[in-house]
Amino acid sequence: MAGSEKVRVGVVGYGNLGRGVETALKLTSDMELAAVYSRRDPATVAVAPGTVVRSMADLEADASDLDVLILCGGSASDLPEQTPALAAKFNLVDSFDTHARIPDHFAAADAAAKAGNKVALISAGWDPGLFSLNRLFGEAILPQGSTATFWGPGVSQGHSDAVRRVPGVAAAVQYTVPADAALAAVRDGSADASMGAADRHLRKCFVVLEDGASADEVREAIVTMPHYFAPYETTVTFVTAEELQSEHGSMPHGGVVIRSGEVGEHRQRIEFQLALGDNPGFTASVLVAYARAVVRLAAQGRSGAVTVFDVPPGLLDPRSAEQLRAELL
Amino acid sequence: MAGSEKVRVGVVGYGNLGRGVETALKLTSDMELAAVYSRRDPATVAVAPGTVVRSMADLEADASDLDVLILCGGSASDLPEQTPALAAKFNLVDSFDTHARIPDHFAAADAAAKAGNKVALISAGWDPGLFSLNRLFGEAILPQGSTATFWGPGVSQGHSDAVRRVPGVAAAVQYTVPADAALAAVRDGSADASMGAADRHLRKCFVVLEDGASADEVREAIVTMPHYFAPYETTVTFVTAEELQSEHGSMPHGGVVIRSGEVGEHRQRIEFQLALGDNPGFTASVLVAYARAVVRLAAQGRSGAVTVFDVPPGLLDPRSAEQLRAELL
Repeated sequence: MAGSEKVRVGVVGYGNLGRGVETALKLTSDMELAAVYSRRDPATVAVAPGTVVRSMADLEADASDLDVLILCGGSASDLPEQTPALAAKFNLVDSFDTHARIPDHFAAADAAAKAGNKVALISAGWDPGLFSLNRLFGEAILPQGSTATFWGPGVSQGHSDAVRRVPGVAAAVQYTVPADAALAAVRDGSADASMGAADRHLRKCFVVLEDGASADEVREAIVTMPHYFAPYETTVTFVTAEELQSEHGSMPHGGVVIRSGEVGEHRQRIEFQLALGDNPGFTASVLVAYARAVVRLAAQGRSGAVTVFDVPPGLLDPRSAEQLRAELL
Repeated sequence: MAGSEKVRVGVVGYGNLGRGVETALKLTSDMELAAVYSRRDPATVAVAPGTVVRSMADLEADASDLDVLILCGGSASDLPEQTPALAAKFNLVDSFDTHARIPDHFAAADAAAKAGNKVALISAGWDPGLFSLNRLFGEAILPQGSTATFWGPGVSQGHSDAVRRVPGVAAAVQYTVPADAALAAVRDGSADASMGAADRHLRKCFVVLEDGASADEVREAIVTMPHYFAPYETTVTFVTAEELQSEHGSMPHGGVVIRSGEVGEHRQRIEFQLALGDNPGFTASVLVAYARAVVRLAAQGRSGAVTVFDVPPGLLDPRSAEQLRAELL
């Protein structure tokens, strides 16, 4: 990135998240998509008009043309390999979201990025990401209190997949929905401190049966599934394939982080809420803003792995610090 | 601050905000109140048990015992003098909130802090402060969209003072209240882009009349007051001095920042909401967290003026970066 030229972004992987980044970059004034890198044959990847598709094998040769990569692969198998492998040669952002493995993923990314004098921001998005930041703000500002996170209303891919694995299920979508009573209890301070995720959420499943499958057996298999559904109030509604497509074909999501505490004689409450028409599209918008920040951190001489906790918020916005103070403070 | 000792905080000024800082520091595990500094005779300042009160004249002599100052004076006359005067000798945080004068205040604080190799964080609190941060996150992540800030329900000191200056008013409290219809319109995307603050808020005044004053004249003087009330839907309710004290004696406040945008075919919305039982107490809690961050920035070798936009969020919390990643990300 020289002078006033735009930040050149390489997108690695082109599923829902990669397509979201392609769309989000068009809404910025200071960044542009250099190319999408795919493991598929570039000729077979259907991108938006004007988008360049290159093979993953071309990535290293293109390094001098790329200011930052946005990794759009999955946390299960793609990112644990790609992030450390690429962090030595590129500034990058990923959305790694396997919570228990974040310390290992951070360590691997940090070692590679330090060796290559690059910046690798891991686990950006909304949870982990913006929700994490709001848990942090809440606990730092109200150190004595309680934090509750509610997810939804929205489609959970993990739970939808779990339903699809039930014998007799042809297709399915699962919505996670905050329980109104739990939300109200958290807000008014009457919530039981032991209230867990299963007390705070309902699970609503919309299922297309395979020919000849028993609705009762499928319903029973879903609602008794350990961990995923058994602890929750779960509903199963059977629909046709056409209804599933037309009524449940988008990917809304969201949720709210609530921190409340008593300070002196007074109750104080902080809430951060998302209502998203398109979950991967919003994650993509967050990744794009953090990619801008990564380029700026690298320009400041920073190297190694970082998270959203390490990024001064002003670096997310294209405006200068002076403009931000005048326009937003 | 050596080794694992607590951060030693000096509080400059002891009104509602200073008392809030005194309370908020007790809820932290890693910070403590060194002393309150007052322009009044220390013997006349009624502090909480255990709090040390010193004269402003002692401040410089105490410098080596103080890691950071939290300035609790007003933006009209205290902070424009105190912040630049003290920033050369102390790390400090203030809550300067006169928006139009922020660039000048920043420049004066920056020059002094750089000369003294100290860090001065200006304009912390919730607006400016946390609301500013959320305007920034919203606009950086959804660069095409609209931002709306609603204040209240809560007591506005400036508007309460304006009512108190009306001839015939013995005492008064004014509440700023978001207009439900405007809030709903912003949330569902139907709001008119030209909607201003007066379309988004109601003003509710509770007034104690002086003996012999005309209720009709006082009401008319209030609702027609330019800027403060004329553009708003305003109600005036007359109460007794006892009712004002018992029903309207606390200082609740809050509000919500809403950012919404269209990305591709989808609507995305981000909200940050505060519901505060005690407005100055919450501002104090924010100042305490930012005072911790200021000490850490100074320890990293940073100097000059900064704002909430410049502070990596992880510095607000006493936990290590590793702990934060494991516990909050």
